[in-house]
Amino acid sequence: MKNLALLTDFYELTMLQGYYFTLREEDAVFDMFFRRQPFGGGFTICAGLDPLIDAIIDLRFTTEDIEYLDSQRIFKKEFLDYLAEFRFLGDVCAVEEGSVIFPNAPVVRVHGRLIQAQLLESVILNFINFQSLIATKTARIVIASNGGPVLEFGLRRAHGVDGAISATRAAYIGGAAATSNVLAGKKYNIPLSGTMAHSWVMSFDSELKAFEKYAETYPDNCILLVDTFDTIKSGVPNAIRVFRKLKKSGQRKFGIRLDSGDLEYLSKEARRMFDEAGLPEAKIYASNELDEWIINQIMKNGACIDAWGVGTKLVTGDRDPSLSGVYKIVAKGVAGNFKPSIKISNNPEKITNPGVKNVFRFYDNDNMMLADLIYLEDEEEVLIKAIEKREPLRFNHPSFDYMHLICAEYGPAKKLLKPVIIKGKRVCEPRGLQDIRDSARSEIDSLHSTFKRLINPHVYKVSISDRLKTLKKRLIEDSCAD
Amino acid sequence: MKNLALLTDFYELTMLQGYYFTLREEDAVFDMFFRRQPFGGGFTICAGLDPLIDAIIDLRFTTEDIEYLDSQRIFKKEFLDYLAEFRFLGDVCAVEEGSVIFPNAPVVRVHGRLIQAQLLESVILNFINFQSLIATKTARIVIASNGGPVLEFGLRRAHGVDGAISATRAAYIGGAAATSNVLAGKKYNIPLSGTMAHSWVMSFDSELKAFEKYAETYPDNCILLVDTFDTIKSGVPNAIRVFRKLKKSGQRKFGIRLDSGDLEYLSKEARRMFDEAGLPEAKIYASNELDEWIINQIMKNGACIDAWGVGTKLVTGDRDPSLSGVYKIVAKGVAGNFKPSIKISNNPEKITNPGVKNVFRFYDNDNMMLADLIYLEDEEEVLIKAIEKREPLRFNHPSFDYMHLICAEYGPAKKLLKPVIIKGKRVCEPRGLQDIRDSARSEIDSLHSTFKRLINPHVYKVSISDRLKTLKKRLIEDSCAD
Repeated sequence: MKNLALLTDFYELTMLQGYYFTLREEDAVFDMFFRRQPFGGGFTICAGLDPLIDAIIDLRFTTEDIEYLDSQRIFKKEFLDYLAEFRFLGDVCAVEEGSVIFPNAPVVRVHGRLIQAQLLESVILNFINFQSLIATKTARIVIASNGGPVLEFGLRRAHGVDGAISATRAAYIGGAAATSNVLAGKKYNIPLSGTMAHSWVMSFDSELKAFEKYAETYPDNCILLVDTFDTIKSGVPNAIRVFRKLKKSGQRKFGIRLDSGDLEYLSKEARRMFDEAGLPEAKIYASNELDEWIINQIMKNGACIDAWGVGTKLVTGDRDPSLSGVYKIVAKGVAGNFKPSIKISNNPEKITNPGVKNVFRFYDNDNMMLADLIYLEDEEEVLIKAIEKREPLRFNHPSFDYMHLICAEYGPAKKLLKPVIIKGKRVCEPRGLQDIRDSARSEIDSLHSTFKRLINPHVYKVSISDRLKTLKKRLIEDSCAD
Repeated sequence: MKNLALLTDFYELTMLQGYYFTLREEDAVFDMFFRRQPFGGGFTICAGLDPLIDAIIDLRFTTEDIEYLDSQRIFKKEFLDYLAEFRFLGDVCAVEEGSVIFPNAPVVRVHGRLIQAQLLESVILNFINFQSLIATKTARIVIASNGGPVLEFGLRRAHGVDGAISATRAAYIGGAAATSNVLAGKKYNIPLSGTMAHSWVMSFDSELKAFEKYAETYPDNCILLVDTFDTIKSGVPNAIRVFRKLKKSGQRKFGIRLDSGDLEYLSKEARRMFDEAGLPEAKIYASNELDEWIINQIMKNGACIDAWGVGTKLVTGDRDPSLSGVYKIVAKGVAGNFKPSIKISNNPEKITNPGVKNVFRFYDNDNMMLADLIYLEDEEEVLIKAIEKREPLRFNHPSFDYMHLICAEYGPAKKLLKPVIIKGKRVCEPRGLQDIRDSARSEIDSLHSTFKRLINPHVYKVSISDRLKTLKKRLIEDSCAD
C-alpha cells in the first residue's frame, strides 16, 4: 500500500495544527458508525478493514508531503516537524471484516491522542464506507439469485482504478464468485471470468465462423455471446451447431451469454432449444444492467439462468452509491480521565451515543442473531456475569425514551469490537480474502430471512444498555440546560 | 502512473488470444461513445483523457503479470510471449478534454491492429466514463449556484482511494474552486479548502472557547462551524464575538459554515445577525448533502450563501453514478482495406453508427453551438469545401429515417476528434488541469442556456451526414437480408 498520509480532508490538518498548539496532550475516543441501511435493506456487511489497518499503521508524511503542506503557507514549522515524525500510536478496535453490521452501533473505535485519532477520520470513512456498500450490494444480489453464481463485471463503469479494484475485493467478500477485473484478480487471488464481447462476433465474416473459432481456441470452456444479430433466430442455433461438435469431441463445459432483450423469455426459449437439441448441459449466463430487483423478479418467474454477470449497478451501488458512515468524538480527557462527549441535534436519531462503548450480539440457541446491545465499557464485567447466568436483560430503544424490551431468553452472546491495532501495532493477523468471504456467508446465514427481504425488511434491534441510556439522558439534559 | 496492463476485463485477454491465433493481421477501428446524458441533463463534459493517454502509452505486461496470466492455465506460451512484448502501436483520436460532448457521437476513436485496439476497451471506459460523469455533475452544481464557489468535500464517501482522487480531478475540470482532498490537491495542484469539524468544537470546554482558539490559530482565514449546539442561539452569537475581535485587530476574512438544519432560513438569519452586528464581511458557507437541485431551489429563494461545500453527491454522481460509455467496433479490414461494421439491435437507438467517422461542430456567429454533424472521414474534404462556402447542409436524424433538417446559416465549424496518439506515441502536449478547466468553462459558455436547464433541457442536435446515413441504411438492410 502506498503512503496515504495525505489521503485526508484538509480540515483534519488545520484542526491538527490547532490541537498541536492547544490540546496536544488531550486523549480522545472516536466512533465510526453509519446511520442508515443502504438500498432500503435490512443489513450491511462490513468490508475494507484489512487494507485500512495497513493504511493506518503505514501512515507517514514524506519529505515531499511536508514540502507540499509548507507551500500552503498556513502551517508553522514546529507543527510540520511534528507531522514529519507522525506515527499513529493509539488503539483501534473494530468489528470483524465480513460481519453483519447495523446503523448507529460502532464499527470502528479509535482511542489515542486527540491529535492522532482525528487524522484517521477521512481514511477510515473512505475505506469502510465504500467497501461495505459494495459488499452489501453484492450480498443482496447473491440472495436474489438464490446463491448465484454472481460474476462481477463492473470495471468499465467503476469509479476510477481503485474504485474498480476495491469494488472487486468487496464484491468477493459479499459473495461474488468471480470477477472480470484481471488486476484485482491478481492482487487478491480472486477467480477470473469472461469470454467474449460483441466485437469478437463482429470481427469474423459470420456469427457461426466467430463461434467456431472461439470453440477451437477454448474447447473446454466455451461460452458464446448470442445476441449480436438475433438471439433466437441466429445466436442460439449457431451455438447449438458448435456445441454439438464440442460434445462429440467429449467436451461438456459450454454455454451462452444473453446480453440484451427479455432475459426471462430468451432464457426459457434457449433452454428449450438446447434441451430439444440434446444439449441439457449447455449453461445460460445472463448480463445487461442487472441488479437484485431484476434478478429477483425473473428468478421468481422461472427464468432458466445458471449464472449472472453483474456490473454497473453492483460496483457503483446504483441509486444508493454511498454508505452514510461518520466518525464522531465520543469521549475526551487527559491521562485516562475520560469524559463522555455527545453531539446534540434537533433530530433525536442524529444524537450520538456518548462514551467508550462496545456491542454485545445475542444469538438464539440455533445460532440465529437475536439483537445487539450497545453498552459502556465500564459495565462490561457486570454484563458478562449477567449473560453467563442468562439473566433477563433490558434493551432500551436508542432514541425513544419510553420504548424498551426485556430479553429474557437467549443463547450465546459475543462482543463485536475487538482490538486490531494497539499502540500503533497491528495485533490481528492479516486475513485472507477467502476467510473474510466465509465469515460474511456465515454471518448472513445467521440472519433470519425476514431481515434479508429486498423490500421492507424486518428491522433488526440495536438497543442501548441501562447505563448508556442514563448517561445519554443526563448529557442531553446538561446540554439543554446550558 | 503505475502499469495498468492488467486493468482490463478478462474477456479482452481471452479474445486477444483468439485473435492472435486467427486474425493477427486484422486492423480495426473502435469508437468510444455514450448513449444517454447523465442526470437527465442536456450536456456532458469530457474528462479523463490526459491520464488515459499516459495509461495507453505506458501499457506493458510485466514478468509478474505474465506469470499470473500463465497461472490461469488458459493462455498458450506463444500468446504470452506476444503479450510480454506488447506495446500499443496504433492511433487514437479524441475530443479535447473539457469539451462538451453529446450521446452517440464518438468521443475516443482507436485505430490499429484489432488485437491491440481491443485491449484498450476497459481502460478507456474506466477513465472516461467516471471522470466525465463527475465533471458533468460538478458543472451542473456550479451552474445551479450561479458560479459558486463550489468546494469539493467528497473524499469520505468516494469510491476508494482513486475514486476520490479522480473525482477531485474531474470536479476541478467541471468548475469546482477547491477540494478538501489533500492528496489530490498535491497531485494535481488544486487549491485546498477546509477548516474544522464538529469534533473541534466538542474538544474544548465550550463553543466560544473552541472558536477563540481557532481564531488564534487562523486569524487571517477563520471559518467557524456553528451548528454543534444551536446555530442561531449559540453558534452565530459566539462567532460574532470572535469576529468582532478579529475585525478590531484588522482581519477581514472570516465566516461561518452551516452544516445542518434549513440552510435557506439559517443563512438569512445569520446574514441579518452579522449585518446588525456590523460584520457585513462575514461569509456564509453551506454544506450537508447538497446537490444541484437543492442549491438551485434555495438560491432561487434568496438564501444568503457565499460558498458551497458539496461532497457525497458530487463525487459519486448520486442517483446516476455511471456514464453509459461503450466501445464498439465500427470498421475492420486488412492492409488499409476497411469495411464498415454495424451492431444491430431491436432498439433502433442502440444501432451503432458504422465506419470511420469524425464530427463537425457548428457554431453561430456569436460562437454559440448550433449542432454537431457526424460524418465519414472520406467525405471530409467535400464537407470542408461546402463549409468554407457556407453551403446549406443536410443534417439527418441518427435513427429516424424520415427526420432531417437543413442547416442553412452557420458560422465557424470545428472538427472534434483530433489525434492524441499516433503509432503508439503521444502527439499532443500534456495539458495542465487549469487549462482543461478553462476549456470546460468556455465550452459551457458556448452552450445556449436552454441546454443547461437542470430539468427537461433542450436536446442538442447530433445528426449524421447524407453519406453516413446511406451507409447505415445499406448495412442495416444487408444485415436483415442475412
